[in-house]
Amino acid sequence: MYRYKITFAYDGANFSGFQIQPHKRTVEQTLKNAVNKIAKHPDPPIPVIGSGRTDAGVHALNQVAHFDLPYHLSNESMRKALNSLLPLDILVKKAELVSNDFHARYSAHRKTYRYRVDQGEFVNPFKRNYTAHFKYPVDVDKMREAARDFIGEHDFTSFVASGSQAKSNIRTIYDVQIHRDPAQNEVVFEFTGNGFLYNQIRIMVAFLLEVGSGQRPVSDVKRVLAAKDRTQARMTAPASGLYLVSVDYGKDAERN
Amino acid sequence: MYRYKITFAYDGANFSGFQIQPHKRTVEQTLKNAVNKIAKHPDPPIPVIGSGRTDAGVHALNQVAHFDLPYHLSNESMRKALNSLLPLDILVKKAELVSNDFHARYSAHRKTYRYRVDQGEFVNPFKRNYTAHFKYPVDVDKMREAARDFIGEHDFTSFVASGSQAKSNIRTIYDVQIHRDPAQNEVVFEFTGNGFLYNQIRIMVAFLLEVGSGQRPVSDVKRVLAAKDRTQARMTAPASGLYLVSVDYGKDAERN
Repeated sequence: MYRYKITFAYDGANFSGFQIQPHKRTVEQTLKNAVNKIAKHPDPPIPVIGSGRTDAGVHALNQVAHFDLPYHLSNESMRKALNSLLPLDILVKKAELVSNDFHARYSAHRKTYRYRVDQGEFVNPFKRNYTAHFKYPVDVDKMREAARDFIGEHDFTSFVASGSQAKSNIRTIYDVQIHRDPAQNEVVFEFTGNGFLYNQIRIMVAFLLEVGSGQRPVSDVKRVLAAKDRTQARMTAPASGLYLVSVDYGKDAERN
Repeated sequence: MYRYKITFAYDGANFSGFQIQPHKRTVEQTLKNAVNKIAKHPDPPIPVIGSGRTDAGVHALNQVAHFDLPYHLSNESMRKALNSLLPLDILVKKAELVSNDFHARYSAHRKTYRYRVDQGEFVNPFKRNYTAHFKYPVDVDKMREAARDFIGEHDFTSFVASGSQAKSNIRTIYDVQIHRDPAQNEVVFEFTGNGFLYNQIRIMVAFLLEVGSGQRPVSDVKRVLAAKDRTQARMTAPASGLYLVSVDYGKDAERN
């Protein structure tokens, strides 16, 4: 068997998330259809393993998945074959033959997510699916100060949605960057960590916006982390602003 | 009766164009529903008159329409009432009480359209509904030179789609601007004229891209205009790249 790693972007607006669900249009199902068409519909069908799920409406700039094919195709032929079969809201940017011990989910070392918040007075019709909308002024320095308390290894029980199936809520955040994009009239957040819990980034962003708009003190991140109580963080920012930017793997994962 | 002029933006991706059609989601129908809800569903319903149609998938940054209401609302109340009833892919930016002789279509003096062409190697999933995709290098100077021949009063028979219901194909183009947007990796066209025929801008853009990529000589605009033969221009650029930017009216149209 030949294992392929693919790196791909998708516009999440018209997908019911990554994970396969009956009678729904999902990223995983759409990729699986294309891979199995290339493989001439083997029985059982070839599964496609993503680095992780994204929710309905969440986007990806460089999501990663792997699958095994019974025969060899060049990287470029694989990329072209997939793109010729995929709808325009998924683009395979790279396909690579990798060693059989590469695993899109288990080999992932770190992930980076971006969150875009539009600060316009009204919801911009062209951004409604691509940003969150928060019209109140925010103090970026305050949010940066508060965000520093997220960095490191923490129990994120206060920042996980109730549907989470994770065994442990302990995760490590390596970096949080927050900047204004004046051209777009946006505030942009970037989080890098060894993995994120269900809705964790959306809850952290909503929390930081409350800090930035003066509804919470800067010190609240520390307090609410320590409380280990989901009801303390309250809000979840919408899916539309969230982008999976990259998934990082060890260098030894690639064969070619 | 009180006549209101509204200026509004829409993302055309999920509309079957501006004009009402049975069993289709159109901009006109969506606006008409909101206006008639505000007016408490009079019989017959109040019509909404747009400055002109846009095709399925075409966007607007500042489209204009008018309608008559039997009672008075302040401009700001009207804007808010409409936005509270409209879906997020239409945004009313301005509502103005105007004199009863203002007509969104007949009072329009000039219109400006923008056309965005993405030059990336592949179709960007996030731009698929908001640009056309043309990956071949284009010479902007050549396109500018060719576009100068569009300026002025011409018979645009060679640049109108076959479904046109216009009585005359004579129109005046006041200005054509073409520039590169390096940040977006796009070439952007802007056309200002006293009105445009069915698919005229999309045909002119496809034509200019053929000039810019060396498939046609710069002198071809003049030759094809003179031919008055639609088969000469061949291609039509897709709806996704087209934006109605503004509709200009005489100053005397506003009452307040």
